Amino acid sequence: MAEKQPSIAYSITVRAEYPNRVGMLGEITSAIGDAGGDIGAIDTVSSSRRGMIRDITINTRDSSHGEDIVKRLKTLSEIRVMSVSDPIFLRHLGGKIEITSKTPVKTRNDMSIVYTPGVGRVTTAIYEDPSAVWTLTGKGNSVAIVTDGSAVLGLGDMGPAAALPVMEGKSVLFKEMAGVDAWPICLDTNDPDEIVETVKNISVGFGGINLEDISAPRCFYIEQRLKDELDIPVFHDDQHGTAVVLLAALINALKITGKRMEDLKVVVNGIGAGGIACGKILMSAGVTNLIGCDRQGILHRGAEFKGNTAHEAFGEISNPDNIEGDLSVALGDADVFLGLSGPNVLTPKMVSNMKVDPIVFAMANPDPEIWPEEVEGMVRVMATGRSDYPNQINNALCFPGMFRGALDVRAREINEEMKLAAAHAIASGVPKSDLNEDFIVPSIFDLGVVRKVAREVASAAHKTGVARRTRKRLGPFSLAKGR
Amino acid sequence: MAEKQPSIAYSITVRAEYPNRVGMLGEITSAIGDAGGDIGAIDTVSSSRRGMIRDITINTRDSSHGEDIVKRLKTLSEIRVMSVSDPIFLRHLGGKIEITSKTPVKTRNDMSIVYTPGVGRVTTAIYEDPSAVWTLTGKGNSVAIVTDGSAVLGLGDMGPAAALPVMEGKSVLFKEMAGVDAWPICLDTNDPDEIVETVKNISVGFGGINLEDISAPRCFYIEQRLKDELDIPVFHDDQHGTAVVLLAALINALKITGKRMEDLKVVVNGIGAGGIACGKILMSAGVTNLIGCDRQGILHRGAEFKGNTAHEAFGEISNPDNIEGDLSVALGDADVFLGLSGPNVLTPKMVSNMKVDPIVFAMANPDPEIWPEEVEGMVRVMATGRSDYPNQINNALCFPGMFRGALDVRAREINEEMKLAAAHAIASGVPKSDLNEDFIVPSIFDLGVVRKVAREVASAAHKTGVARRTRKRLGPFSLAKGR
Repeated sequence: MAEKQPSIAYSITVRAEYPNRVGMLGEITSAIGDAGGDIGAIDTVSSSRRGMIRDITINTRDSSHGEDIVKRLKTLSEIRVMSVSDPIFLRHLGGKIEITSKTPVKTRNDMSIVYTPGVGRVTTAIYEDPSAVWTLTGKGNSVAIVTDGSAVLGLGDMGPAAALPVMEGKSVLFKEMAGVDAWPICLDTNDPDEIVETVKNISVGFGGINLEDISAPRCFYIEQRLKDELDIPVFHDDQHGTAVVLLAALINALKITGKRMEDLKVVVNGIGAGGIACGKILMSAGVTNLIGCDRQGILHRGAEFKGNTAHEAFGEISNPDNIEGDLSVALGDADVFLGLSGPNVLTPKMVSNMKVDPIVFAMANPDPEIWPEEVEGMVRVMATGRSDYPNQINNALCFPGMFRGALDVRAREINEEMKLAAAHAIASGVPKSDLNEDFIVPSIFDLGVVRKVAREVASAAHKTGVARRTRKRLGPFSLAKGR
Repeated sequence: MAEKQPSIAYSITVRAEYPNRVGMLGEITSAIGDAGGDIGAIDTVSSSRRGMIRDITINTRDSSHGEDIVKRLKTLSEIRVMSVSDPIFLRHLGGKIEITSKTPVKTRNDMSIVYTPGVGRVTTAIYEDPSAVWTLTGKGNSVAIVTDGSAVLGLGDMGPAAALPVMEGKSVLFKEMAGVDAWPICLDTNDPDEIVETVKNISVGFGGINLEDISAPRCFYIEQRLKDELDIPVFHDDQHGTAVVLLAALINALKITGKRMEDLKVVVNGIGAGGIACGKILMSAGVTNLIGCDRQGILHRGAEFKGNTAHEAFGEISNPDNIEGDLSVALGDADVFLGLSGPNVLTPKMVSNMKVDPIVFAMANPDPEIWPEEVEGMVRVMATGRSDYPNQINNALCFPGMFRGALDVRAREINEEMKLAAAHAIASGVPKSDLNEDFIVPSIFDLGVVRKVAREVASAAHKTGVARRTRKRLGPFSLAKGR
């Protein structure tokens, strides 16, 4: 089992004062190293003959590890810990996003243009031609990131207020990666119908809805109703974002192993929102022999689902040979293990029963179904949800480009073809020459991939008839005729 | 009656090509002038021996006037009109606001801080201490601008999509004037209860709610329920913003005329949302003899209100002598006329029956209850809602500073004392030495006034016990202890 590594997510910045003497800094850094801390930036706050003040940033394993390191520093003679701050919290003070005006308002003329009386003509133009709202407002570039906070990250039901920093983070990524204006909408209700009505009511000003961190099975109902009742894309990222990136990774893993989708036996472990979406996209991509597994074992026809209609439905469409048993049975002769479940449910023994060149995507967060070290040499291609191992399956590879492409063509929806197009675009983001067992997904910071995803998604929208415009860009001087 | 003036709200930019010869530009500008157009900027697009291309921006009276001018230009020989564009529409392409990240995301470390895994600790911190949402997210600086588009500007029920450019304009002013992040929420429902539920559901991420352009009488019910059921300020700007600025103007008008609130006879004409709020704030400010008038005449006890409970309630609290009759009866011996009704309902004859030094605020938009020219010399202090006459009563003087102050102290509500404080702050924005009949309200671009309003509103919130914090600013290095 891998030991927890110091991480920037648990970093602290210690402000320390000490006599300005050779060897003092070494004493401090040694103490930090001995305590297991990983030193990052060291900044000088002030330096004089009398003394030195430094800010030392230290990655730690967790909060109590940080406290231990500070205690250790406090035992050093001649060293005074002046303060301990927390870079993560400092970066969150006051929130991470803001609204800015695209146009200055410094004079009465400016005011007459962006507000009354000038804006009245723009209002009238939209009233007379409702489609003008796409051109004359921000609707066409805006997404609502909607959550009720019921399934936040791996943390569970944290409530809508605690979910806000996550949604703000997502908004940051939307903008930085794809220029999309995404505003967080945290809902103070868990009732599915109320969520649907609320989102419908506020949808006017948005060109798309990104559902986020809503627990199953409510998320299925909410997404389906919104898809049916709205004319803008509705995309539950925890389901479909994960599915798209996973498919991209699998496409590349198959290039390495030389296997084909149609021939695979795939086991999906953990049939929640993510697992179901992953299973479905693989079937769309050509997989026929796909088996779902959950705590109760293999989903099969005739199993007791105890009212879990999502499991029952999944059991209907998967497991063509209707096999029964537990995960180890399912994995016999399997080519691919996809984990969307919990830590340490997969054992090396089970992996040893898989077919040659097994592919294991252990995506449970933060701790995977099996640690890569445990199956080194046994698995041909390994991926996780973690950033500290190769091949991170990260939603951020999908959602910015996906919405960019959908908004660019004013898509009515995000359909299966658009998701498949996104997966292929992401997969092709790893150049053939670079492709290897440890590099099957491109970097999330590769903006070329984002643009490619957007282009392919837009093109798929056209092909499937859900695009509302052909031009992707506004002309700089289009005349608003007769208005 | 004033003739309609050319305005920037109806400006056009004509791109014209003509031989590069002395006298040609004069010919063009003369033609525009003859046609009644008001020439603004003249830009050179290209200039060669062969010919000249210029962009000429022309303020016109309305759309058909613009078309007439273009037709006129087209009759000129040797001049070719290449295109006609519309500066107002060009400034609206793609909308007027965007979301920006306060923090760069260029590396995996950045990502670990603003998104997973780092953000998980921030989520946990808010889960454990819900009040931390004010510090660790944008809630404390965010306002929802909520409308159903049922009473947009003076245009009426334009629907939520057509209202969006107005809300974006408001968002621009919020940011540029007061640094507030205000996001437009345009609601696809007119049902009061649904509006209330929707706003309650989305309120989690906002520090305040600005209701906008919602028609009466629904706006009263919606505002009252939201005030009762939310713990953040709810402010219907069309009512209270107008009322605050009007009171500020009246405070200054009384300094000029030497009259006192307690001694005034005030007639409010037009008992809609704005009229009721104006009447109420004046009574809070000390006016006792206030009479409401509407199309049916003076509101009095015993009148037939035909189910208009808002009128009935206003009739109960106003008109202490319970007089009856029409507007001209009401205005006999009145000191102040406040118009929130429609164009040309006030006549010089009625004004002549008012007391000495009459004050007339004719705020109907775009055409006032009476044009200033009609009562020149008869009225001591005249104000309108227009920017082309002195003393414009403009909500933009109030809402940015009002919300800035409320957010700075995390106010639970905006109460009567805060509104009175804002009015006095605005009034004091006109220096005593400058105060005169044509200068009773400060410029909306005077950011000193915005800051003063914010300060006084914050102070009033403290005094009335609705402030949730004393410090107005976050310390730059506060330690998020033990998280």
